[in-house]
Amino acid sequence: MKKGLFITFEGNDGSGKTTISKMAYEKLLDMGYPVVYTREPGGIDIAEQIRHVILDPKNTAMDARCEALLYAASRRQHLVEKVLPALAKHQIVLCDRFVDSSLVYQGIARGIGIEEVYKINEFAIEGHLPDATIFLHVDLHTGLSRIETRGEKDRLDNESMKFHQMVSEGYDTIREMFHERMHVIDATKSIEDVLKATIECLLEIINAHD
Amino acid sequence: MKKGLFITFEGNDGSGKTTISKMAYEKLLDMGYPVVYTREPGGIDIAEQIRHVILDPKNTAMDARCEALLYAASRRQHLVEKVLPALAKHQIVLCDRFVDSSLVYQGIARGIGIEEVYKINEFAIEGHLPDATIFLHVDLHTGLSRIETRGEKDRLDNESMKFHQMVSEGYDTIREMFHERMHVIDATKSIEDVLKATIECLLEIINAHD
Repeated sequence: MKKGLFITFEGNDGSGKTTISKMAYEKLLDMGYPVVYTREPGGIDIAEQIRHVILDPKNTAMDARCEALLYAASRRQHLVEKVLPALAKHQIVLCDRFVDSSLVYQGIARGIGIEEVYKINEFAIEGHLPDATIFLHVDLHTGLSRIETRGEKDRLDNESMKFHQMVSEGYDTIREMFHERMHVIDATKSIEDVLKATIECLLEIINAHD
Repeated sequence: MKKGLFITFEGNDGSGKTTISKMAYEKLLDMGYPVVYTREPGGIDIAEQIRHVILDPKNTAMDARCEALLYAASRRQHLVEKVLPALAKHQIVLCDRFVDSSLVYQGIARGIGIEEVYKINEFAIEGHLPDATIFLHVDLHTGLSRIETRGEKDRLDNESMKFHQMVSEGYDTIREMFHERMHVIDATKSIEDVLKATIECLLEIINAHD
């Protein structure tokens, strides 16, 4: 690799983002690529402390803008301590969720507005947008039925139908806004098929970049 | 009071800001004004938790932009939970430090830039700038000699001479930027004289507003 490559994974709820991104990482590693897998807060101590404040169930009084600023702060520290050093070593960084998730969840689903949330994230990332984003796309109905069959549900999975619908529409907007770096993959198919398409897409991105 | 009044206190290091603002609060309270005294994080649980992350001496790896985002998050929660409810009850809120401190400390002294730090604070405060700011002004030399005679020194007091100089110059810029709401008081005089001038200034602001 002549220089580092920053690739993020995004997708609707129930798209299989985490499963697929981890499997794709293992595959690239087996193929000998200098690849790193991470997701915020990514074991970065300060980012973990911030995430703890965000997710503490006692903090029901948390204002949506306070939450958005905390996500941006956690993102900044993870970027500076983990992503940028890996890119400086010419590694391929695969990151499960990044700035697009904040635009969708805080910007649209929490109603703050994409432009507003983008402003504070621009401050946090200072131009370090992903080189490419793998977008795993499922329709709302398929995504929700997958969530329902999971053993455990986290806080977001328990949000209302309305919320999931806003997330889905939010991702439609984001895909359009950043269409140049978006690589959309049909994630309604089997894990094997989605993984195959994801690997093919990743190899294309890597070859175009190298 | 027909409506609330939001007054902040700012000043160079060693200007006596905290002492004077508390004494002024007591005086206004004695005079029967509906006055509230606060400073961030102001006993607001979520804001305290955020402040704890910022000030933990173990967090030496904290990036300056992460720190600025955390201050903005803490400010947002304190504003929403404490300042705005008091203003809604037509009270006079006296707040020791507010957005100007971030512009000076993170924007100038930490080198991020005033415009950049202002952007994330605009997101946090949504137009709720102070109605008036009491600026206690001392020259760099007087401020520093006062800090030296204090019994205990906190983290900022131990910063380098260069840092204090940047803070002093930063406040010069801020006073100019927001000259319409700035009420500058000569804080090189005795506590009695500074307090007298502060009270006179506060009463003028209150009478003009009422």
